Order: sequence, then C-alpha cells, then structure tokens
Amino acid sequence: MKPRLMTPGPTPVPEDTLLELAKPVGYHRSSEAKQIFAEVQEGLQYVFQTKNPIAILTSSGTGGMEAAMANVVAPGEKAILCIAGRWGERWKNIGKAFGIETVIVGVPYGKVVTPEMLDKALKEHPDAVAVFATLSETSTGVGHDIEAMGALVAKTRAVFIIDGISGVGAMECRVDDWHVDVCVAGSQKAFMLPPGLAYVSVSAKAWTKIESNPPSRTFYFDLKKYKSKIAENDTPFTPANTLIKAQAVSLRRFRSEGIENVWKRHDRMAKACRAGALAMGLELYPERPNNGLTVIKVPAGVDGNAVLSKMEKQYGVKPANGQDDLKGKIWRLSHMGYHDFFDVLAGLSALELVLVEMGFAVEPGSGLAAAQRAFIQG
Amino acid sequence: MKPRLMTPGPTPVPEDTLLELAKPVGYHRSSEAKQIFAEVQEGLQYVFQTKNPIAILTSSGTGGMEAAMANVVAPGEKAILCIAGRWGERWKNIGKAFGIETVIVGVPYGKVVTPEMLDKALKEHPDAVAVFATLSETSTGVGHDIEAMGALVAKTRAVFIIDGISGVGAMECRVDDWHVDVCVAGSQKAFMLPPGLAYVSVSAKAWTKIESNPPSRTFYFDLKKYKSKIAENDTPFTPANTLIKAQAVSLRRFRSEGIENVWKRHDRMAKACRAGALAMGLELYPERPNNGLTVIKVPAGVDGNAVLSKMEKQYGVKPANGQDDLKGKIWRLSHMGYHDFFDVLAGLSALELVLVEMGFAVEPGSGLAAAQRAFIQG
Repeated sequence: MKPRLMTPGPTPVPEDTLLELAKPVGYHRSSEAKQIFAEVQEGLQYVFQTKNPIAILTSSGTGGMEAAMANVVAPGEKAILCIAGRWGERWKNIGKAFGIETVIVGVPYGKVVTPEMLDKALKEHPDAVAVFATLSETSTGVGHDIEAMGALVAKTRAVFIIDGISGVGAMECRVDDWHVDVCVAGSQKAFMLPPGLAYVSVSAKAWTKIESNPPSRTFYFDLKKYKSKIAENDTPFTPANTLIKAQAVSLRRFRSEGIENVWKRHDRMAKACRAGALAMGLELYPERPNNGLTVIKVPAGVDGNAVLSKMEKQYGVKPANGQDDLKGKIWRLSHMGYHDFFDVLAGLSALELVLVEMGFAVEPGSGLAAAQRAFIQG
Repeated sequence: MKPRLMTPGPTPVPEDTLLELAKPVGYHRSSEAKQIFAEVQEGLQYVFQTKNPIAILTSSGTGGMEAAMANVVAPGEKAILCIAGRWGERWKNIGKAFGIETVIVGVPYGKVVTPEMLDKALKEHPDAVAVFATLSETSTGVGHDIEAMGALVAKTRAVFIIDGISGVGAMECRVDDWHVDVCVAGSQKAFMLPPGLAYVSVSAKAWTKIESNPPSRTFYFDLKKYKSKIAENDTPFTPANTLIKAQAVSLRRFRSEGIENVWKRHDRMAKACRAGALAMGLELYPERPNNGLTVIKVPAGVDGNAVLSKMEKQYGVKPANGQDDLKGKIWRLSHMGYHDFFDVLAGLSALELVLVEMGFAVEPGSGLAAAQRAFIQG
C-alpha cells in the first residue's frame, strides 16, 4: 500500500531531501557547513519574509517557543497570551514554568481570538511587555489575523511573538511587514523536513528587550548565544547538521516555486478540501480556517476513531485525530508542505470511501467533484 | 577523494543507518513509532548498562546536560564539579545560568581529576546535593575513573551525574554498577548517528531528588515530563523521529557485536593509535587517555593547523583541531563509533605522510608498524 501522510506534522518530505539525509555526515564546523548554514539562513529569511536573523535550534517547535518566551519576558513581567487551542495553551504552560505573569485572551476551541479582543487587552494592560499568538492553531484548524494583531502591538512597547510552527511556509505570513518581532517555526511542517529543527526570527525591537533583561535562567535556549554565532554562520552547540543540510534542499523549492505561489497553492488546496468536505455533508470545525489543514467535525452517529483507522489500514491515508478532549470528535487533514491538489483528492476520496462503507449518507464522488470545481475557481 | 571523518563528533554513520534516514517520514504517535521507541529504549539501556529509564531529548548533548543539572539541582543548592577541560567547564556555565552554587575541583588541561580530589571535596562539602564529572573529556583526551568516583559519591546523599556524551558506547561505562545516577550521552558520538538526539538516564536516587525539588524553571528539558511518557514509549514533544528510527538500526550493531567487544575494539584501536603516535616521535597530550580519541601534542616547529589542512585536502582524512587556546597545539584523532583498526591506520598514515612532506624527522612506516604490533598484542 502506498502511504500518504496527512498529519499536521510530520509532513511528507521530498525524495531529493530524503536522499540528502542518506549522505555521509560531515563536520559541523567546516567551511562547507558554514556555506550551508548561510544558504539555509537566507532561505529561511525568504520563507519568513524577514531581514531578521533566524536562530536555528536543534529541538522541537516547543523548544523554539521556550526560547522566545524565556528570553523576551523576564520572570514577574506581564505578557498577554492569545489562546484559541492546545498550542496557545502551550504558551501558558511555558509562561508558568518561567514565572511570567500572564493575561489570557481566550476563546473556546474552534473560535478565533480577534484583533478587537487583543486591542482591549492591550489597553487594559499597558504594562504588558509581550504579546503571544498562534498563526495556525492546528488543534482546531483556526488561523489568526496576525497582520491586524501585529499592527496593534506595533503601536505599543510590547514585543509581538507568534507560534508560526505549522503556519509559516504554508500560508501568507510576512514577518517584517506584519510587525512580528519573534516568529517560531518548525522543520517538520511546511518546511518539508523531518522533525528536529526549530527556527526563531528575532527583530531589533525584540533584541533590545532581550538584551535589557536580567540573565535568563536558560542556557541551551539562550538566544544571545545564537545571535553572535549566526553572524559567523555557525551555532553555539552541535546542531543536527544533516537536517540543516537537507533543509537547504527543501528550501530551494520555495525559491523555485516563489513564496507567493506557495501560499497560493496552499490556499487553493485548502479551499478545495473545505469545499469537498462540505459537499459530503460534513461541517468544518474552525470558525476561521487556516490553509495548512482542514479540520472536520465528526458527524453524529459516526465513530470518528474507526474512520481514521479504516482510512489508514485500507487506503494508507493518514490524517490526524483530535487531541485530548477532541479525540474522536474531529478529523484533521493536513495539506501543508510537500502536497498538491491531487493529494487532497486522495484524502477526500479515502474519507468518502470509508464513510460510504460505514453507511453514512454521502453521494459517491460529490466531495471530489466539489473539490475539483473549487480548485478550478482558484 | 574518499572522506574519512575522524572528528570526535560527528562520527561516521553506517550505510544501513544512513539509508534508514532516507525512508519516508512517519507519524510520531503511531503504534509503529512506539515499537521503535521501545526498541531504542532497550538498546540504549544495553549500551548504558542500566535498568534506569532513559529520556530521549531532541537536542545537542548540551541540552541533555542542561536537563540533568536544571532538574536535579535547585537554584541556590551546592554542587561539586570535577573539571578537566572545556566540557567540564560547560557544567560550570550551565550551573551559573541556573543559579547553582558550585564547588570546582579543577585541574589544568591535559590532567585528570582523581578520585582522591573528589573524596576531599565531598568531605569538605557534605551539603553538596550533586557531583558532576566527565567520562571522556574530548577537549584534552582525558578519561576519568568514573567507577571509583561513583563508589565515593554513592556513600553520600549526593546525586552522581556524568557527561558521558563522547564516552558511552566507546569505553567501559557501567551506569548501574558504577553508581552513575544521571548519565548524559549524545547520538553523534559512539552511537553511530548524526547529531540531534541526547540521552539522559535517571536513577531512582536522582528521581527522588528531582521530584522533591521546587518546580524547575525549565519546560522543554523538564525530565518529569519525559518520565511519564517513557512508560508509554512516547515523548512529551515532537521528537526527531527519523533519527530515533535510524538509531534503532545503529543500536542493533551493539547487540550483535556485544557491548564488551565494542569496548574491547575501542581499547585496541586506542592502544594502536597511541603506540603509532609515540613511534613517530610524537607525544600524547592527556595524562590519562581515554579510548574514544587520541590527542597528540603538535611538536615544536610544526604548524599544527597546516598539518590538519593538508591531511584533509590531500588525503580526505579529517581529525579535529584543538579548541580555543589549544587550537594549533594539539591534534585530536577520533576512533569512536563506526571505526575499525584499519581506519586508525589510515589516520596514522595520513599524519605520517604529511609530517614527512613537511620535513619532520619521522621514519616512514614506523607509526604503522608500531600500531600493528600494538593491535596484535590486544
């Protein structure tokens, strides 16, 4: 059976990138390694749409989030957290570990934190030194209006920090134009690489705050250590250098396709996937869907877990289940990274085939036809 | 030219492990992923010679060191640090970041911290809650008598923590028998994998201390989060799952060769390499050499940097330079991990060829013949 990974991380990795990973390992302080680092740095800046330096951390995305939070906000300082799901809650949990006073701007799962809500919080808490938000909340499929939020935060002294882990490279996100001071991304999402690297861009405004803080109680994630090394195309600690080298290969795809075309491809895939799901009589879960994945409510009377199990076992198609309380209640079909429209069709087809088999009333082909029409409309 | 990596990390990776890295990426929460995790956990325990659970961190070895220190020692508590080089100093720097009171048992570079020195410090500081040491100090080539140190620490309330990053899997290290409470290792050393994973074993004595501490100011490296997940063959954060899968492949080599044979192989390679260097009229740098690498003093009148450059450019052989103040003053030939005696011969040969070319008085073949004799003696 041909496996089709449709989880929102890890995502499929192109074959030439995989083959790069099979090459002999080199020394991470060589001049060749520095050349690769420079290429990756520039490629990441292109995808982020930023001129800011980007720290390359060997860690999961959470490590990047910890680096952002622990470096920018000193213990006891106040931060505003926009929370719309499980990944927003991660900001809260990291903040707790680091003794940060947090103001929560929260909404129920599936809903979106609006710029208006943030505006109110900023006015109520002028002493907040940072605002945290999530570009793509993969636990619910919600996407936030980072552009509008960034414009609000830019007017204050607060540093704007976003978890862009499963968003950057899949949906429009212009770090510099949108006033994102710190943007965290992860290799295993739209960057078409296995897990293992986190990327953290840091603006001048954020560096000023970081450097004015008391010494942070962190070592491996001390961004100041990375800053001085980035200038030398190097890292402070032994990096996952085979992943960095392979990242260079995947990054070349962004250049050749063009970042705006990459965003457009994801937009069309997402529109097609949503149209297909709706045509099958299904409902979408998020109030404001993002383009990295399509999150569908499990309809009443259907065993959501069994559907996923059948999709994988019978057809090799693997979307993700809901997490924690949402397990069995939603399906999450990712189409970020190395995916095209035909992969979306495979996902919709497998879902429809299983639903038909399980007796759910769906007109065979309806989802595919609707997706095709949506794709044509662009 | 055929490249031969002789740096003490990264080290060469076997071809079947590299090919595993080129396979399609899977979902890290699948049942297959849990099976692989269980296999890797068991394999690591075999190499560590421990029954303790081993946290698998996606980070460099330094991340593992931070996890060990930040979890075991609370801010303000006292720890004894045995420091014989750059990697021992890393303990000091992490301790500083985490507000730990440190007692330094230090020796000049090239020398070894003896069990007697540690014994004295333990008696002078009965309030120390932990002792930190380095199995293989790769900056100088020194190896420490961890067995004797462990026996001393075991009689106290202190937790014994070692940096075994470039030692475990290359030289004898029996974590349980030697009373090592926390042992940190790294994938890119003797474990025959690219960089990206750190391994941290934790004893019952260490868990008791960790769990009695106030909440640690760390999130990603909070070992308690890993403990509960290890029991489920899982990790708290998205791991570098392709590296874990490939680690399973390299770990099978330890089983088929047998850990004592692995240690013996490294012992014979190290003896042969040292004998070869001495026969060429060179001197060894460390007072008590370890078996993972051979560290040679650059003789007077020889340009140490030029020798390394020629070895790499003319022969593809890449040992490491000294670090910081030792740059140009020592050569570090690693033979840990996926190396055999013939790789050592290649390293010695290239060194001899370059020294002859540069006019250093060495009898051609003397190093190789001596290495061969030492290898035969075993």
